[in-house]
Order: sequence, then structure tokens, then C-alpha cells
Amino acid sequence: MFDLEKDGKGWTGPGGSAKEAAVAEFPLSQSIAGVSMRLNPGGFRELHWHAIAAEWAYVLEGNVRTTVISPDGQAETDEFQVGDIWYFPKGHGHALECLGNQPCHFLLGFDSGHFSEFGTFSVTDWLGHTDPGILGRQLNLPAAALINIPKKEVYIGTGHLPPKDAPDDLNPAVPPSQSVHKFRLETMPPTHEFPGGFIKIVSSKEFPIQSTLTAARMDIEPGAFRELHWHPNADEWQFVMSGEGRVTIFGSHGRVKTMPYGPGMVSFVKRGYGHFVENTGTDTLRLLILFNAPTYQEILLTSWLAANPAQLVADHFGLSLDQVKKFPKDSSGIIAARI
Amino acid sequence: MFDLEKDGKGWTGPGGSAKEAAVAEFPLSQSIAGVSMRLNPGGFRELHWHAIAAEWAYVLEGNVRTTVISPDGQAETDEFQVGDIWYFPKGHGHALECLGNQPCHFLLGFDSGHFSEFGTFSVTDWLGHTDPGILGRQLNLPAAALINIPKKEVYIGTGHLPPKDAPDDLNPAVPPSQSVHKFRLETMPPTHEFPGGFIKIVSSKEFPIQSTLTAARMDIEPGAFRELHWHPNADEWQFVMSGEGRVTIFGSHGRVKTMPYGPGMVSFVKRGYGHFVENTGTDTLRLLILFNAPTYQEILLTSWLAANPAQLVADHFGLSLDQVKKFPKDSSGIIAARI
Amino acid sequence: MFDLEKDGKGWTGPGGSAKEAAVAEFPLSQSIAGVSMRLNPGGFRELHWHAIAAEWAYVLEGNVRTTVISPDGQAETDEFQVGDIWYFPKGHGHALECLGNQPCHFLLGFDSGHFSEFGTFSVTDWLGHTDPGILGRQLNLPAAALINIPKKEVYIGTGHLPPKDAPDDLNPAVPPSQSVHKFRLETMPPTHEFPGGFIKIVSSKEFPIQSTLTAARMDIEPGAFRELHWHPNADEWQFVMSGEGRVTIFGSHGRVKTMPYGPGMVSFVKRGYGHFVENTGTDTLRLLILFNAPTYQEILLTSWLAANPAQLVADHFGLSLDQVKKFPKDSSGIIAARI
Repeated sequence: MFDLEKDGKGWTGPGGSAKEAAVAEFPLSQSIAGVSMRLNPGGFRELHWHAIAAEWAYVLEGNVRTTVISPDGQAETDEFQVGDIWYFPKGHGHALECLGNQPCHFLLGFDSGHFSEFGTFSVTDWLGHTDPGILGRQLNLPAAALINIPKKEVYIGTGHLPPKDAPDDLNPAVPPSQSVHKFRLETMPPTHEFPGGFIKIVSSKEFPIQSTLTAARMDIEPGAFRELHWHPNADEWQFVMSGEGRVTIFGSHGRVKTMPYGPGMVSFVKRGYGHFVENTGTDTLRLLILFNAPTYQEILLTSWLAANPAQLVADHFGLSLDQVKKFPKDSSGIIAARI
Repeated sequence: MFDLEKDGKGWTGPGGSAKEAAVAEFPLSQSIAGVSMRLNPGGFRELHWHAIAAEWAYVLEGNVRTTVISPDGQAETDEFQVGDIWYFPKGHGHALECLGNQPCHFLLGFDSGHFSEFGTFSVTDWLGHTDPGILGRQLNLPAAALINIPKKEVYIGTGHLPPKDAPDDLNPAVPPSQSVHKFRLETMPPTHEFPGGFIKIVSSKEFPIQSTLTAARMDIEPGAFRELHWHPNADEWQFVMSGEGRVTIFGSHGRVKTMPYGPGMVSFVKRGYGHFVENTGTDTLRLLILFNAPTYQEILLTSWLAANPAQLVADHFGLSLDQVKKFPKDSSGIIAARI
Repeated sequence: MFDLEKDGKGWTGPGGSAKEAAVAEFPLSQSIAGVSMRLNPGGFRELHWHAIAAEWAYVLEGNVRTTVISPDGQAETDEFQVGDIWYFPKGHGHALECLGNQPCHFLLGFDSGHFSEFGTFSVTDWLGHTDPGILGRQLNLPAAALINIPKKEVYIGTGHLPPKDAPDDLNPAVPPSQSVHKFRLETMPPTHEFPGGFIKIVSSKEFPIQSTLTAARMDIEPGAFRELHWHPNADEWQFVMSGEGRVTIFGSHGRVKTMPYGPGMVSFVKRGYGHFVENTGTDTLRLLILFNAPTYQEILLTSWLAANPAQLVADHFGLSLDQVKKFPKDSSGIIAARI
């Protein structure tokens, strides 16, 4: 459990702010890192790339414009609203701009817990450390024109308010991207609806470029709980958007841990570990989830027990055959509060 | 070399017993672990899964019934006789029951030497450490009915003798598995027959679900030896079923080791290491072999030498061209005893 | 930076010599190792295989004959001239002979920096440490005939001058290889021609068996430089064939290093690190390059900047919109000297 908003490694400037949870802050999460980032109007997360991780994001507030380039030279500029997600493959250059007069806020996820250290490459950091003579020949400007560029990483900068409509100063010679980098997660219909809530799942099947991650949004109603299950193929990284809950993780050999969490906090469940999540509050518990695999897999306790010979199950627990036959035959997924 | 039956980490109970060779016991074998398991009539290896390894098995004695569930919710219940093998992918839940009035004995193989530590998840361990209130809601029973379930891992339990025919208490709502988890290794015809023995090879081509391993059965007759060769793509893990032999392993830079082995012992050959196996006893040497790759690859010394210019080979060894021309042109695979 | 010809781990004998840069010598290069090898007429690099690496080579001088065997038993004998490359997959047995009356010289590359330690298996090392009784039965000779074979690794040996034409003592029973192990890199037309030089790229698309590497040849003319760029998918290993230059590498967080290099020297750029290469001499700078990925990917600074909204780019660097609009719209790849 890690309180990203409270304990994340922080950065603040006129253009915006960031809170980070990589392995240095949250050592358990080797496979996934996260950043909560806010940009003010006119603020931008400068052009950069990640040498060792792909970047995923979910917009929590406001509007964002992104521009990304692929190794084939194709580029894409996109607008994102609340509930939209993006995915930029490892090493692809990109930039993020706050769009409009309101601040924006988004959760970034990375497919390596180690992404931060020695892994993020910013354009000002690069060019500010490059000989102006070389740079001038590279950029078709006299070296003197480059004397005043930033000498160190800007990270989050400020500039003109970007145009509301698609920018008209984009280079028409750059070929448009064949891959779509945007998916509207929040507006998709639930993948599964249950008495106690719903789940939306976006794997690489729905969003092909998202080839190293699967994303999910889950709502658990007050008093309900997401039933006991595990994921054979992926670690799970949960971010609490709102509400109060607790997660219970089973790590074999008697290792069980129950941890409360609330808004802005992150929980991590290793591949194959059994777990369930309870809503302990009075409002909906809203979770944003990442799995480090392109496909979604789960095994639910109830489905598993239902698939075994009833007598064998009864013998495991000292129960009667009649009792085992009362076990649910279909998974309820998210079990509603008792009325 | 490791004597699994003698030095394996042991467990014994009324339902059966197990001997284990994971990296803690046999550090050389990073990629494959093994367990020799025996179940008494009515005994069962309880419902469990492995978070970090797939499970493979070969039945040495008796009969076994297994039930396995996949993340797609499909399940399969199967019966196994001596010489049959199974394969359950990483993280898929499964249970094993001794079938009939006789004990059964099988060799388990895992595609990670680290599978044991923190990797095996048993259903009693999980549910015994879960709040009975949650469990009752999950299982559709009053919490009080769950007060007496086991409080810690049963591992190997005892229960009713399972029915001889397919159990009639299976849930008809569970969809049958599209993948076959069983292969009859011992009854297949030899892949290669040689003057000194035979070899049967089951890769993912013959047994598609076995996607991380290749299995083999080899018989070497008294006085014969499996010729010098190496495997470019896989580590090799050998278990002696019966007979006496010795294996010689070449690890480059003058490192050569010859080790005798007999029933219940395990030998490990790293990927690419040269090796050969001699039958030093008076009975057939029967080996059960796992490779940690889904396809089978070998390069035989004789094939290799035969493929090079004869003069070049002669120059290597200070032999005459006539001598090199006497080298076998076809591999004999397992070279018979001299008469 | 590593001076392979000067500081490489050396070996010299009557048959030839070798200089090696594996992780022990050049710790930065975890993913690629290199050897500069020379064979005298009649010299041969003996039959051997690499347990943990594939072998790639480029012929710098003279002619070479190779024989390679695959796990399917297929073999191929090939002749190589200056500028030809070969690729032998991991673990496939092979031998190299100097062809003709002149010495030959080639650069070997391996797809693991660790290939050398415990990874190279030579046939004399193996058979010299094998019981002559076993060996005699294996090779169809009396054990006494094998008493005088070398007792330790020959590595580079000497023998008869190989025939100029394809050897007539090859075994007709050995099936020919379905895969081509040879590609004529130097005689292919440039993949890209620029004002300041050219680049030739050979990925697995052009040379299918080269499945773990991409190779390139680049010429940079005096005063020109290969423009700022990075490779999202691969480490880069550069060998200077001739000329004088310097490479500048950007490693994020202000880490920048400029290093001069010349003939026989090796430079290594980690995946995703920004870099550029200048010709600082009066002759063409000729580079031989390996990437540890089967496909080629690059992102050029100019393409990236050109793909972003011009105002956003201007705001990054404190430049005017007019200045940014002077940035090149097309990559020049290798920028020529200023006249």
C-alpha cells in the first residue's frame, strides 16, 4: 500500500506538479510505476521519452492534448477528456499539454517499476547539454540563436495557451499514425455488471497498441465486495479514485494481509496471489486498475470450487455434501451488501 | 546430481507423502524442479495453484484423477494410468486424487526451479485465513457453518474413495475444456529406435498445451550409451526410473564431470552443455526427461563431424583421412554394447 | 569506449590470433560482445559452438570458409569475401577456415556480452576430455587410434590449405541447409543516402536467420555528422573500421559524454539513449554497427520536433515561431560539412 498523493516523490512548478511512485518509493511494485500529474492552463509536460517503459494514462480532470511520434516517423496529435486513456510504446517521443482554461489532472502508469531512475529523457535536458554549433547545423539556425535555450531539464513548462481546435501549425509532411493511441475507457459499457458493482476491461484486444498492459475500471457499491480470485498471468496495480475500502491479499503459506485504502492510494497484488476488495465506506469505491499483461485472465474461487467433484470439495472443508451443493454455481463477481 | 527419493525435502501424512527437489535442495537446477508424490487410497493433493510455474507429471504407479480449471472458466476432469502425463499451465487451479484401492505414485515436474518457495497456493491455506463472514457470503452459507474448516494448509488430505467412473457430482454448468491436458506418453511408439535403446519425445507439437516443456522417455540397454550430443535450446532434467548408469557432462574449458546415478536420482544438464549417458548396470536404464523448451532440438557429435570437410576434421585430431572416413555417417543415437 | 585491437583479451598462435571484448573487458556492453580474429593461410578456428550466444561476423580482409550444422541435421559450407556477413544461431556447431594464400581478418559479434565465460565449447576440448573407449565406439575407431588426439582446446589450429573450390570430401548424406547463413552487406545499395554519407541496414527482414541482431554499415564524410537520434528498441555497438570521429551520448538527467574514437575501437550506446557521431578526421569515417534486435527502429530529433505543434516547440526553447519554422522539415540523416 502506498499513498501516492501524500507520499509520492513530488515536483511542483508554475506549469504544474507531479507525485511519483516508482520502486524507490514503493519497492513492492517492481512491474508497474505511477505518477499523479497536474498541469495548469498553458502548462505542458515537455517533449520526452522513456528508455525503459511504455506510458499509459487516464484523465481524472480537465482536458489534455498529446503529440506522439513512432520510429516509422508517423505522428499523432490527440485530445483527451475525463475518462479517456492513452498508451505510448516504450521509447516513443511524446508531449502533453493542458488544454483549455482549467487545470487538468491525470494518472500515469508505466510498465516498469524502474522507469524513473535513468529512464526519462527530456528534450531540454538533451539539447541544453549539446554543443550549440552542432545544434545550429541540426536545426538550421545560427548557433547564436540557441545561446539562450534552457540549460537544464524543464520537465513541466509554461507557454501559450494551446488552440482549442486542432493546432494549425502542425507539419503536413509528417505522416499520420496508423495506430490509435486513445481509448475512451469511461464511456464504454461495462464488461460485467454484478449486483454489487461493475467492471470495465480494456485489454490489447479492445485497444491494440496497449500491448504490455490491460486496464480496468471497477465500481464497488457500499457494503459490497469484489469476490475472492487471482490472476494467473499478471501483477495488479490498483489506484483508488474515490471511496473507502480495504484489500485482502493471500500470499500462500499463511501469509495474509488486510489493508485499508482511500483516494489517491495505490495497492499492488503480485501475479497469482489470491485477493478480494471490500467497500468499507458509504460511497461507491471507484478503482482504476492496471495489469502487466496484454490479455486479461482471472480465476474466481466460486467457479473453481464449482468445477470440482462436490464430494472432494466437501472432504477438504469438513462440510456435508448438502452444504457444498449450496455453493454458488455461477460467479457473482461483485457480491452486493447484505440487505 | 541429486537423490530425490533419499534427500528430497519430505512431507508425510495419512493421505500420502512427497519428496521435493527445488533450488533450495538442488541449486544447479534453476529452470526445473521436481517432486516425487505418493497418494494413498482416498488421499488427495488438495485444490491449489502455482503462481510461478506450470505443473507436469508422469504416473509411475496406480491411477490418478485430476480436475483443472482455466482462466476462461473451462474445466476438465481426467483419469491417468501408469505412463500417462499431464500438464497444467502456470496459475491454473487443480486437484489430484488417488483413484482406486491401490496407492499411486507420480513424478511432478515444474518449469521453474523456484516454484516451491512462496509459489504454491492451497485452498485450505487461503480459506482458513479468510474472515468467515466474507467466506459465508462468498459461499452462500452462514458464517457459523464455516467455523470448523481447516485453519491451515492441508496439502495432502484424506476423504471418501472417489467413484471409479467419472464423478456424477460435477457441475453441468461448467463448460468443458477445449484444451487436452493429458497425453499417453508410454503407449506412443518410439520416436527413434536404435541398436542400444529407444527414445520417445513429446513436444508441444504432439501435446499442444505443454507449451513450456518437452518430455522424453529413454531406454538404454545394458552396456549401451546415449551418444555424445547437446541441446542448443534447452536445459535437461533427467530422472532415473530404474536401472544403473552414469552421465558425463562437458562444460567447456576442460570442465568434465562423470556421475553415477540410479533409481530416484535426478541429473541436470545446462543448455548447450555436451553430454552422454551410459548404462552401467545389468538391467535396462529407464529415464524420464524434461527440457525447458516447447520444441526439441539436439546436435549429435557424429552428425556434426560428418557434416564438415573430412580433411578439416582430420587436421583437428591428427588423424589420417582414411581414419576420418571410417567415422559413422549416420547417427546411431544410442550405441549398443560391444558384443 | 573500448580499444578492441589494443586492449582486447588476446590469443596468438601459429594459426592466427584473436582480440576479445566481452563484459570482463568492456563491462558496459552487457548485450553484445566482439572479437577481432585473424587466421593465417591453413589456419582454422576449430569446430565449436556457443551455449549462450549467436555468432555474427563481417569479413574485413581475405576469404573465409565456414561450415555450420543446425539441430535439424542440415549443414551448409559457404565462402565469404570482404564485406560479407554470416550469422550462426545460438548453439549451432560451426568451424571457420582461412581460404587461399592470404591471411583473413573478420570482426565477430555475439548477442550476449557474457558469451565468453563458460560459453564457448570446442570439439578438441570436449573429445580430449572424453574416455577414449567411449570415443572409439562413438567414432568407429579402435580406442588406440585416439590416444594422440589433442588433450586440450586447440582454439585456432593449423592444417592443410583448404581446396579453392567447394571441398569434395563433404558427406553427400548430410541434407543441405534450408536457411541461408550468408549476406553480402557491402555490395548491397545504401538504404539511405544523405549529403554527408550513407547507411546500409540489414535486419532480419533482409537476412531472415539473423533473428536476434540488426547490422549496419555507415560512412560519414569528413566534417559531417550523423544527426541526433535514438533507438527505442535496441542497444547499439559500433566498431570503427577506419577514420577518426567522436560519439556524444546523452543518458538523461544531465549525463552527457563525448568520446573520440578511431580504427579498432568500439563504442556502446544503451537502448533509448540519445546520441550523434561526428567525423573529426580528414578521411571517411567507416563504421560497422550491431543492434540487439531483429528489426531496425530510430527516432530522429528533427522528425520529432517537426511533428509537434510549432508554438509548443517554440515555448520549450524560448525561440520565436519564425525560428522554429526554419527547423528542417525532413531529416537529413547525416549532415554534410559546412562549405
